[in-house]
Amino acid sequence: MLFSSDNIAACAPEIMAAMAEANAGAARPYGADPATGRLEALVTEVFEKPAKVFLVSTGTSANALALACLCPPWATVYCHQKAHVEEDECGAPEFYTGGAKLTLLRGEAAKIAPDALADALRFTARAGVHNVQKGALSLTQATELGAAYTPDEVAALAGMAKAAGVPVHMDGTRFANALARLGCAPADLTWRAGVDALCLGATKNGAICAEAVILFEGGAAHDRAWEFELRRKRGGHLWSKMRFMSAQMEAYLTDGLWLRLAGRANAMADRLAAGLRAIPGVEIAAPMGANMMFPRFPRRGHRALQDAGALYYLWPGDQSLDGPDDEPLQCRLVCSWATTEAEVDAFVATLSGALAAKAA
Amino acid sequence: MLFSSDNIAACAPEIMAAMAEANAGAARPYGADPATGRLEALVTEVFEKPAKVFLVSTGTSANALALACLCPPWATVYCHQKAHVEEDECGAPEFYTGGAKLTLLRGEAAKIAPDALADALRFTARAGVHNVQKGALSLTQATELGAAYTPDEVAALAGMAKAAGVPVHMDGTRFANALARLGCAPADLTWRAGVDALCLGATKNGAICAEAVILFEGGAAHDRAWEFELRRKRGGHLWSKMRFMSAQMEAYLTDGLWLRLAGRANAMADRLAAGLRAIPGVEIAAPMGANMMFPRFPRRGHRALQDAGALYYLWPGDQSLDGPDDEPLQCRLVCSWATTEAEVDAFVATLSGALAAKAA
Amino acid sequence: MLFSSDNIAACAPEIMAAMAEANAGAARPYGADPATGRLEALVTEVFEKPAKVFLVSTGTSANALALACLCPPWATVYCHQKAHVEEDECGAPEFYTGGAKLTLLRGEAAKIAPDALADALRFTARAGVHNVQKGALSLTQATELGAAYTPDEVAALAGMAKAAGVPVHMDGTRFANALARLGCAPADLTWRAGVDALCLGATKNGAICAEAVILFEGGAAHDRAWEFELRRKRGGHLWSKMRFMSAQMEAYLTDGLWLRLAGRANAMADRLAAGLRAIPGVEIAAPMGANMMFPRFPRRGHRALQDAGALYYLWPGDQSLDGPDDEPLQCRLVCSWATTEAEVDAFVATLSGALAAKAA
Amino acid sequence: MLFSSDNIAACAPEIMAAMAEANAGAARPYGADPATGRLEALVTEVFEKPAKVFLVSTGTSANALALACLCPPWATVYCHQKAHVEEDECGAPEFYTGGAKLTLLRGEAAKIAPDALADALRFTARAGVHNVQKGALSLTQATELGAAYTPDEVAALAGMAKAAGVPVHMDGTRFANALARLGCAPADLTWRAGVDALCLGATKNGAICAEAVILFEGGAAHDRAWEFELRRKRGGHLWSKMRFMSAQMEAYLTDGLWLRLAGRANAMADRLAAGLRAIPGVEIAAPMGANMMFPRFPRRGHRALQDAGALYYLWPGDQSLDGPDDEPLQCRLVCSWATTEAEVDAFVATLSGALAAKAA
Repeated sequence: MLFSSDNIAACAPEIMAAMAEANAGAARPYGADPATGRLEALVTEVFEKPAKVFLVSTGTSANALALACLCPPWATVYCHQKAHVEEDECGAPEFYTGGAKLTLLRGEAAKIAPDALADALRFTARAGVHNVQKGALSLTQATELGAAYTPDEVAALAGMAKAAGVPVHMDGTRFANALARLGCAPADLTWRAGVDALCLGATKNGAICAEAVILFEGGAAHDRAWEFELRRKRGGHLWSKMRFMSAQMEAYLTDGLWLRLAGRANAMADRLAAGLRAIPGVEIAAPMGANMMFPRFPRRGHRALQDAGALYYLWPGDQSLDGPDDEPLQCRLVCSWATTEAEVDAFVATLSGALAAKAA
Repeated sequence: MLFSSDNIAACAPEIMAAMAEANAGAARPYGADPATGRLEALVTEVFEKPAKVFLVSTGTSANALALACLCPPWATVYCHQKAHVEEDECGAPEFYTGGAKLTLLRGEAAKIAPDALADALRFTARAGVHNVQKGALSLTQATELGAAYTPDEVAALAGMAKAAGVPVHMDGTRFANALARLGCAPADLTWRAGVDALCLGATKNGAICAEAVILFEGGAAHDRAWEFELRRKRGGHLWSKMRFMSAQMEAYLTDGLWLRLAGRANAMADRLAAGLRAIPGVEIAAPMGANMMFPRFPRRGHRALQDAGALYYLWPGDQSLDGPDDEPLQCRLVCSWATTEAEVDAFVATLSGALAAKAA
Repeated sequence: MLFSSDNIAACAPEIMAAMAEANAGAARPYGADPATGRLEALVTEVFEKPAKVFLVSTGTSANALALACLCPPWATVYCHQKAHVEEDECGAPEFYTGGAKLTLLRGEAAKIAPDALADALRFTARAGVHNVQKGALSLTQATELGAAYTPDEVAALAGMAKAAGVPVHMDGTRFANALARLGCAPADLTWRAGVDALCLGATKNGAICAEAVILFEGGAAHDRAWEFELRRKRGGHLWSKMRFMSAQMEAYLTDGLWLRLAGRANAMADRLAAGLRAIPGVEIAAPMGANMMFPRFPRRGHRALQDAGALYYLWPGDQSLDGPDDEPLQCRLVCSWATTEAEVDAFVATLSGALAAKAA
Repeated sequence: MLFSSDNIAACAPEIMAAMAEANAGAARPYGADPATGRLEALVTEVFEKPAKVFLVSTGTSANALALACLCPPWATVYCHQKAHVEEDECGAPEFYTGGAKLTLLRGEAAKIAPDALADALRFTARAGVHNVQKGALSLTQATELGAAYTPDEVAALAGMAKAAGVPVHMDGTRFANALARLGCAPADLTWRAGVDALCLGATKNGAICAEAVILFEGGAAHDRAWEFELRRKRGGHLWSKMRFMSAQMEAYLTDGLWLRLAGRANAMADRLAAGLRAIPGVEIAAPMGANMMFPRFPRRGHRALQDAGALYYLWPGDQSLDGPDDEPLQCRLVCSWATTEAEVDAFVATLSGALAAKAA
């Protein structure tokens, strides 16, 4: 009953096998190996667009390096106030950009509200040299609250940004989960909707450590590919044995593995949500755009679950297991490609029993 | 006949097996897994000293993060003019320190000459606030030219630094190779000789991607461990699935694997050097303190080798295969744990034949 | 009728005379001159506390350098969302701190609301290494909206900060104006209330270019004086001909000149406010804690004033002179030491006439 | 007998008068005043070329800001190993560029030797992404050792730089002194010879604090003027009461004042050198390209001078007044616009007497 995050899951067997295969004999370093050589063609095929593709081993570095190519030090990144780049990267965007600001925007389910972006764009740089300038828009797909932007929503926000001369970054740590939900083409959620640079995560969806920064042809970052390479090296993110990261990403994007893995995580989330919704006293707030949910139920349910060894976070984190039994607490539950039906069912049964016991 | 670098070698089977083993089921993220939990005790045992240990996936990030904890932005890092931190990291130390300088010192075989360090320490900050201040000493073990500092040499340089209030960093990308040559205890080359922070490389000696930053108890960086953690996260170098890096490092340091791998690389280098020295017209300049050598021989020998598929670098890199047959060119040959006797012997035979053909 | 800012005023004659006097003959550079030598004793006398004192020529650099000594790159500065450090310094705090964040707090009249600070302190670093850490509290005295924190208010906010291990910075660009209003001792508003570092402005209150960064003995920044000096030099803010800046600050703090100048500006603001309040249709929103006010009156009043050559800003700046005559627009009016009664009276008369004309 | 530096001199009366004149009444801030408005036309006239002109109050900030516009963080600035940007700015170029390197070149009299530049340009970025890239060339005119580059020398170095795609910066702290020596047009030493950005100093030549960064039309930095403005503000170097800096620079460049002041300093240096050369036992090493010299004479001469109150630096600074009487020590003597014939003659007489006493 492990629902704390999708980053606790093991590596998918297909990706592990690719690692082993990549280990045959010697290979040229720093991306001059065959697997890395094949990657751009693969990405181009999957996204229906030529692109420059660079791998790094963490989502934080992918985001920060991409933003640094899009936003100068004296500008600001527009992002949701709950975005990972703001809340969970210890200032990596500030470090890599050389001290840019992040302008925090509100919006439901951690999706940026269009009017909030419009206001911010209008407000920025109103006093010329005294203010930081317009930098980049950063969208998180799926969001930190498990919602997915539709292609139209991406296009609307990206369009506002572009009209103001602002390039668009997408933090796609859980891009595959959103894509699997929406059922559209990868292109529809990215370059066709105005995204210039996509950070495509694999780590949380079955890999060991592989995140691709994709700079689409025609986008604002494409001709900064060499700058990106220099920033990556300077940031210490250029692997000598690159083949082992490329092998992961290649396996991930081949034959739809990424969507199968994401689909499995999403399906487990659906199963879990359905089970929870059937229990009296459980509410699930946010829409389900990916592989996580934020149910709210009485404290004694949480106690029973944790006694039974369930692993997950109260959300927000300042809630406490100490307090009245009946008071509802909210939590975050995340499913991964490795989540099993048995885990889901045990969780539901445990909670159901705990809440029924009271009712009885 | 692949001698271009030790970073082209595959991952050692023992380490690959550890990766597979680490993949069993779920594990807590960001270093809260069992393998990471065991690492400090293992390092303490191997180095005979308690220490804080942090893993990152590249040598460049290990060096830059460690230096950032030792050298403020307004100070300078003393290093050899051929050091990796100066020549091959695209300014990563400058980036991570926030703009510190590197003061470049001369010395044979890329080992810092003590008088060069003394002069530099005396010269630094002679005009107070107008100058950058004394920052950190960075030693590379083994050096970029394949030499190893003896424990006494490390202690002498570190002693000069400490007398000036300057902490000591060791870039140990090829630490195991030097250690295997010197036959001393790991402690003798590090904290006992005055090293505060060691960047211990595994990547070039059999791992996929694993470098340990070791902050020894009693050293200048030990109480900056939390700062190190923040810098690592902020630099995007904190892995969520840390267990896969810890598994590599754990296997590497267990039961002497690191020394067996390094010993094999060194032995292959000895075999290669012996074979080359037996060929008339081949000179080998530098002492052999690790797993690499810099022989010099006529251009037609290089041509024959490259025609036969040998992979290695002319060193320095501005030499050319075009030119008179008899002109000697220098090159760098690096052996790894995966180098075979057959590769070595084929290289020697090819060169021997090419040079003999001329003599005939 | 020039009310756009106090930075348009000329240099006060006493300060100009001090500049001329400082110009007699040669003087040692970089602060080794007599005027600079006298400065710390003078500040100590005025503030009743030993302190390290450093001069720079702009308020932005004073703030940014002080904050850089108080807040590491991986931490956050708590400030009001309207603070100058956030809105009007083009990211200077981010630049000088090496990429710290600013956490924006709400509060009336641009004073930080205590509960907003409490929430922010509790929220910061809740997830350990993933978040930026607690850095520094920055108070603006007087605020951007012309309010003054009382000694108790400073002490309350500073006390909350200190309880959380957070040092306190005061942006005192208009410190003299607030002090003259409150009638308390300089110490009461600063170190006695928990302020560690004060940026004391003279530029807007009669100088040409002189801002003192005062690090109080016993405060969190006092033992970072040498670091401050290095940061100042590295930022290009160490004057060789320092005597000319010291002469300004010395004259400013001698015999209460700073309070006389501020008192004159405040008195002119009172006269202006009284005149405006007597006009039907004019509202003045904020309390008057310094030398500025934010009245609101019908658009035709603004048109008449601007036709008559009055200089001031509509506030916020996205209001327009185009539109219905009767619609009220808000503006900012700032008086300086050089504002005259005639200017004030002309402004009042012009507005009064314009609004009466309509009423007629 | 004050020869320690030209930064100890008072402000020239013409410039002081301009300050007083600028103080008449109110003026718009941040450069919207009339004096600033006239500056670009004046510079254009003096340099025979349209240019963007920005003022800052220190030479260090002028250099660092200009270099930041020319050299990205992952590149290197080519400069002489004795250059002010390397030796006397506490790492300001590293700070403002975001961590660029400085590549130190040798050359007589602190002028860069052409072959040293050629070697460095060839060496840089030889290994692609692993190295920092080619950034900017920085020439100091006059040099730290008092030599002046001729127009041909500037053009030769700048030509090599440009052929490698490298823009050219000139640190002109003592530009007027060199110009007065060479007797050529300002344009000949700058844009006509390939200089893109000139930092023109006035502070050491009669001003209080005024340095102009001049970005010549057609040069590599001209279209980065807006970036420069943002960097200046962000660095805290944008004055609100700009008129007082502009007034200095305007007076300086009007009616050849700058050349008259520099000519006077140079003439005093000539008089001093002539006097010294006539004394047996005194050697003057470097050519005189500006207003300073580096004579060498026996220690007892230095003792006598310092006893008589002469102020100057032994150069290099690690020499000591303690030691054998006859041992020659080298020193630096700098004349300024304010140096008097009496001072010069007293210095010569004192030294002549001291050395003759011994000979007797």
